[in-house]
Amino acid sequence: MTIKATAMVFSEVGQPFKNQEVILNGIDSNEVLVRILYTTICTSDVHTFTGKRSTPCPCVLGHEIIGEILDKGEKITRDFNGHLLSIGDLVTWCVYAFDKSSEMAKKGIPQKSEGLYKYGHHQFKPNDGLNGGFATHCVLKKGTAIFKLPDFLSYKQAAPINCTHATIAGAVRVAGYLENKNVMITGSGMLGLSACAMARESGAKNVFAMDINPERLVYAKKFGANKLVDANLSPDEIRKLYPNEKIDVVIDTTGIPAVMELGIEILNIGGTAVWIGAVFNQPATKINAEMIVRNLITIKGLHNYTPNDLGFAVDFIAKNHSKYPFEELVGKEFLLDELPEAFESAQSGKHYRVGIRQ
Amino acid sequence: MTIKATAMVFSEVGQPFKNQEVILNGIDSNEVLVRILYTTICTSDVHTFTGKRSTPCPCVLGHEIIGEILDKGEKITRDFNGHLLSIGDLVTWCVYAFDKSSEMAKKGIPQKSEGLYKYGHHQFKPNDGLNGGFATHCVLKKGTAIFKLPDFLSYKQAAPINCTHATIAGAVRVAGYLENKNVMITGSGMLGLSACAMARESGAKNVFAMDINPERLVYAKKFGANKLVDANLSPDEIRKLYPNEKIDVVIDTTGIPAVMELGIEILNIGGTAVWIGAVFNQPATKINAEMIVRNLITIKGLHNYTPNDLGFAVDFIAKNHSKYPFEELVGKEFLLDELPEAFESAQSGKHYRVGIRQ
Repeated sequence: MTIKATAMVFSEVGQPFKNQEVILNGIDSNEVLVRILYTTICTSDVHTFTGKRSTPCPCVLGHEIIGEILDKGEKITRDFNGHLLSIGDLVTWCVYAFDKSSEMAKKGIPQKSEGLYKYGHHQFKPNDGLNGGFATHCVLKKGTAIFKLPDFLSYKQAAPINCTHATIAGAVRVAGYLENKNVMITGSGMLGLSACAMARESGAKNVFAMDINPERLVYAKKFGANKLVDANLSPDEIRKLYPNEKIDVVIDTTGIPAVMELGIEILNIGGTAVWIGAVFNQPATKINAEMIVRNLITIKGLHNYTPNDLGFAVDFIAKNHSKYPFEELVGKEFLLDELPEAFESAQSGKHYRVGIRQ
Repeated sequence: MTIKATAMVFSEVGQPFKNQEVILNGIDSNEVLVRILYTTICTSDVHTFTGKRSTPCPCVLGHEIIGEILDKGEKITRDFNGHLLSIGDLVTWCVYAFDKSSEMAKKGIPQKSEGLYKYGHHQFKPNDGLNGGFATHCVLKKGTAIFKLPDFLSYKQAAPINCTHATIAGAVRVAGYLENKNVMITGSGMLGLSACAMARESGAKNVFAMDINPERLVYAKKFGANKLVDANLSPDEIRKLYPNEKIDVVIDTTGIPAVMELGIEILNIGGTAVWIGAVFNQPATKINAEMIVRNLITIKGLHNYTPNDLGFAVDFIAKNHSKYPFEELVGKEFLLDELPEAFESAQSGKHYRVGIRQ
């Protein structure tokens, strides 16, 4: 199958996206050709666009993608969970393809495998297929965990699953059992709201949301937060605000050193901090090591996620899509050729996500 | 049983120990009276003695103790492992007594229980029995995990078990599986040497010892270290020195911020740092949070240990007492009334441990 596809190519910071025609000359036996239906603009796309984050260029950005299967190699018969895959199926997939036999994959960290192939982060070469969300098509390479999506999910609910919600699924996994624990989520952006909902559904006793923005804080209540914390408060002020509650787990989505420091200080003895937000260059986070030792504190960093985490996220959104307003997190929609306006809107900070519908 | 005991009481920094007679008027049904046979001076005793560490005063210092049972309440019939206890048995015990029903004990952190009673750290009151190692006797309170010691262990081998080796047993527990992993032990003092031996016996692929003192480094080879690292080297220099080995686990016994920082930086993706050394007031440890996140690093603080860790340490020393030269770690011996000279010797830094034999 030969396809005339279109991609919005990002060449470098400050340059306009280039609308480029790409001829896709079929796929191999381990690949899947997807027609992209919806892509949401992730904060990391904005970071690359503005130069806060570097990526090999030129490239086709966008990795929070869903699409329908147009064609598939004969070796691809089932999704990651064992369900039969057919032409026309609505699918999401892991943001990377990896080799199961690599050292890191065997260690349970496939997202750091040697030779990792990342969707929306890989250098664009005209003869290498397409791999980003801001295009009409995407070629899923060998080693990509694919998941069928239930047809009752809207595109707005489904697109962010393979980045936001899967990353939070990973954070909740490494945080350990949350049942009956006090969980604080620092940052009430897209990741933070997902974390509030997932902590709530994991049986947390209380879900504390922390942000500097009072509107975002109040909105976090719709996602399961029941205690709100102004991020300008000191640890002592927070303890006074909630004198009967000690924090067992902090999940940091901000990546801001002062917030991570506060998160450590507020933890109860034996507590765990999971850091997922610090994915940009920043000054040092200052840790009182004596406190870490005497209070038996654990800090865990997590970047990206495993295919199992994505599976958890798919099931989580399927189960809870109507319980929490995930739909309204995509505040504005654009068409593919309106991508410049879409990025402008994404940069405005008015919306948790901006969507590209095709 | 009424006992006329002697204690060397520490009143405050700079004051001489006071040789004080204490009358012990029997024990209750949950207590055990021990005649102390041997105590080693732990670095934390030296820290208290020199004012680097504060403790309620007056007090009887010393917690690396072994002794023989002189008397026991009728409710104390067996040790922690279920072995029958009898008058005359050689025993060690947990450095603290705790209440099993306390919140922290239920969380698996008994060493942080509310109302914890710590041997060698508790305020001395003439009518409250004796609880430190620099005395002729010690009263083991209700909630103390007691362990019978095998009679083939020397006092020098046995005394440090309930602090040094049990703490390292805890560190190895929280570090997770060490089999076939590259383990770096920062600091080659008493804790570091114990950690080298325990990592080696846990099946580590390589045990890296790091210290600034070349003599201590070479000595670490006797305790299972097979790769030596000068702590003055940079992470890049260390990688060049051992280009084929990546560090999976770092156990820090130094508590020095620069060393803990280096330990984090040298870790492989997915690596774990266990901090146990930072038990004194110190400047901040500066962490590159982006590295923690992107490299999926875990940092775990540990203070003290659980009764199970002590059981592990007792078994470990029993099994390996002749394989590693634990005996020679106690470099000098004194009698109880020579305690001032013993502390002077301990402060000289010439010996890993100094012992008090009774």
